[in-house]
Amino acid sequence: MRQSQLFTKTRREAPKDEVAKNAQLLIRAGFINKEMAGVYSFLPLGLLVLNNICNVIREEMGAIGASELKMSALQSRELWEKTDRWSDKSVDNWFKTELKGGGEVGLGFTHEEPLTFLMREFVHSYRDLPVLAYQIQEKFRNEIRAKSGIIRGREFLMKDLYSFSRTDEEHHMLYEQAKSAYLKIFERVELGEKTFVTFASGGVFSKYSEEFQTLSDAGEDIIYVDEAKRIAVNKEVYTDEVLKDLGLQKSDLVEKKAIESGNIFNLGTRFSDPLDLTFTDEGGTKKPVIMGSYGLGPSRLMGTLAEVLSDEKGLVWPKAVAPFTIHLVELSGGDEGVRKAADALYEKLTARQIAVLYDDRTASAGEKFADAELIGIPYRVVVSAKTIAASAVELTERKSGERRSVSEEELLAL
Amino acid sequence: MRQSQLFTKTRREAPKDEVAKNAQLLIRAGFINKEMAGVYSFLPLGLLVLNNICNVIREEMGAIGASELKMSALQSRELWEKTDRWSDKSVDNWFKTELKGGGEVGLGFTHEEPLTFLMREFVHSYRDLPVLAYQIQEKFRNEIRAKSGIIRGREFLMKDLYSFSRTDEEHHMLYEQAKSAYLKIFERVELGEKTFVTFASGGVFSKYSEEFQTLSDAGEDIIYVDEAKRIAVNKEVYTDEVLKDLGLQKSDLVEKKAIESGNIFNLGTRFSDPLDLTFTDEGGTKKPVIMGSYGLGPSRLMGTLAEVLSDEKGLVWPKAVAPFTIHLVELSGGDEGVRKAADALYEKLTARQIAVLYDDRTASAGEKFADAELIGIPYRVVVSAKTIAASAVELTERKSGERRSVSEEELLAL
Repeated sequence: MRQSQLFTKTRREAPKDEVAKNAQLLIRAGFINKEMAGVYSFLPLGLLVLNNICNVIREEMGAIGASELKMSALQSRELWEKTDRWSDKSVDNWFKTELKGGGEVGLGFTHEEPLTFLMREFVHSYRDLPVLAYQIQEKFRNEIRAKSGIIRGREFLMKDLYSFSRTDEEHHMLYEQAKSAYLKIFERVELGEKTFVTFASGGVFSKYSEEFQTLSDAGEDIIYVDEAKRIAVNKEVYTDEVLKDLGLQKSDLVEKKAIESGNIFNLGTRFSDPLDLTFTDEGGTKKPVIMGSYGLGPSRLMGTLAEVLSDEKGLVWPKAVAPFTIHLVELSGGDEGVRKAADALYEKLTARQIAVLYDDRTASAGEKFADAELIGIPYRVVVSAKTIAASAVELTERKSGERRSVSEEELLAL
Repeated sequence: MRQSQLFTKTRREAPKDEVAKNAQLLIRAGFINKEMAGVYSFLPLGLLVLNNICNVIREEMGAIGASELKMSALQSRELWEKTDRWSDKSVDNWFKTELKGGGEVGLGFTHEEPLTFLMREFVHSYRDLPVLAYQIQEKFRNEIRAKSGIIRGREFLMKDLYSFSRTDEEHHMLYEQAKSAYLKIFERVELGEKTFVTFASGGVFSKYSEEFQTLSDAGEDIIYVDEAKRIAVNKEVYTDEVLKDLGLQKSDLVEKKAIESGNIFNLGTRFSDPLDLTFTDEGGTKKPVIMGSYGLGPSRLMGTLAEVLSDEKGLVWPKAVAPFTIHLVELSGGDEGVRKAADALYEKLTARQIAVLYDDRTASAGEKFADAELIGIPYRVVVSAKTIAASAVELTERKSGERRSVSEEELLAL
């Protein structure tokens, strides 16, 4: 797209009340807008990144055979009372609202209840299982403090996957599939090295839950990392007993701050029991369905990328989710020949389905370069009188800063 | 996709409290689930249709140069007070909720206020205009009655486009572009013939607004249609004076029920004035931005398609938005040869990027055919011992019911 057509502009300053680095950078670069504390809109560049993240997630969910659906935000009080999660005493971050005709409804902060209830319609026999179903959908959480930008919002996008199994063995298999899909997602967005499977507190049905913790000073969690084993332990379960249980040595562990980028839970029959989700097995016996839930927030992941991969000049997007692959910058300074050469290159690149943001604005080289660095597209390509004279273009990699002169052919083959 | 992998099943009956035909059919076919009155979840087949509708809309919005963004559901009270639309006296369908830290927020029923306010950040000079920006996003409306299925929900998906212009002439140009984009969308989903541009009540800034009304007995609106001129008048402005103004003859008009599938408004400076969205023109004069808004609900459109294009056997999807293009039905009755031929055809079709739902279930021909008709995929293709003997497949068009024998080559070239 032509940058002259982009209605957003970079800003020199983020709003004064914005304290999170991820939001400061994303606001300054024109990716998001702060509506109120913990509530952000996604502007065209930001929406492109968010959609790219969702598509990476969709591909990995599809690869493990999960079906996508989309549940509602509005939640029925009666349903959540059945699992004892309606009361503000048991769940402290509900947003609730009144129907005009009378009666209270909630805004979903998660969706175990409605999906478990929905599955009663379709799951009756062992032949109907297993099922992996997920959605990418807005969640609402009434956080008292919301100072982490899009890493912890009052309204945010969540990918929530749920598994429905016949046996513990089947559940374990789906759980491991979901876990490896998550590891692939973190690899693809270039957070693989910084993200550790982390043991955290479990629940009635399992000793531990597993979190995906991404190392960052912006994190709200403290974890103890065994770099060699690529495993970590959340402070909340960091006891001698747990370390022994996990076969970890205190001397191998380093304390780090981290962002919880994803989590996976064994739910057992916590929801299928009260909501009566059962199936009849091969022998005709009625049994409760064994469940798991697997959360990964695309908007939080976008915030984590902004925190972790950025540098002092601005954002640095991984190729898999960058809003564009190439930031084409023309430095014509009014020279028609340069302008036409840049236009022609833009047409060639887009004809090859390469996503290009074309800085065709009337602005100084300094302004264009500063914007390109702030926006953080993986490759910057400069067309100027100098590059035309050299029959080449100047290619700069945002991440490394490496600059080289390449021919148009090399660029098109990138 | 293999139908055996689809966790939904068709149902014989819709819930007893569901009175709308669109929701009854969509629930029976496994496209949606009713969470509560006016609130529905979209199951895998339904989400495919909804996404296809959104993609048709996105293509037509892109064609007129509109940028996509995504605003928040949670709305700031202070902002809506500035335009006098916070009070329940001026807007009767707000959902409002309390922040834990104190203060009330609303759930957006539309987004003129936040987008106008946001544009203040980016619009300063005449060079920054015009702008066309849209989103596809959940809206919340606290309807007292919600008996129209997904045609009028309490929570629904809306595509809302907004235009920001320097002059009335420029506004008029963008308005006409948006109008023609809407007409293309209705053509593409095969509602073109049944959809009429309809004059309805305007506002402070224009005599009329224009609605896109689709003829249907399920409609809540009464309109008077001039079939020859392809124009209609909403009952709310159906007076002798208006008819004279529009050059219409009462004798040419036929009273019809219709669903409001879209609407477009001249907003003038209704929002830019109170929210102070201005620009400096070429002569250095500060002027308010002229606005328009253009609504079209993808979920309502899906409901309208279910109402208008279905028949006594079930849903009938237009090709542009059908969940799959071909419903491949194997009638092997356990015959391995037939099964293998159907499997091979499924692989060939999907390799050509043709979207196929493959009914590979162990079920009777009657059951498979009834399901295929209820689900409403444009083409049904049967592979059986009989079709294999004839070196052909049986192709049935869902809409016309026409059945013919075609070779595999003809099918692949469809």
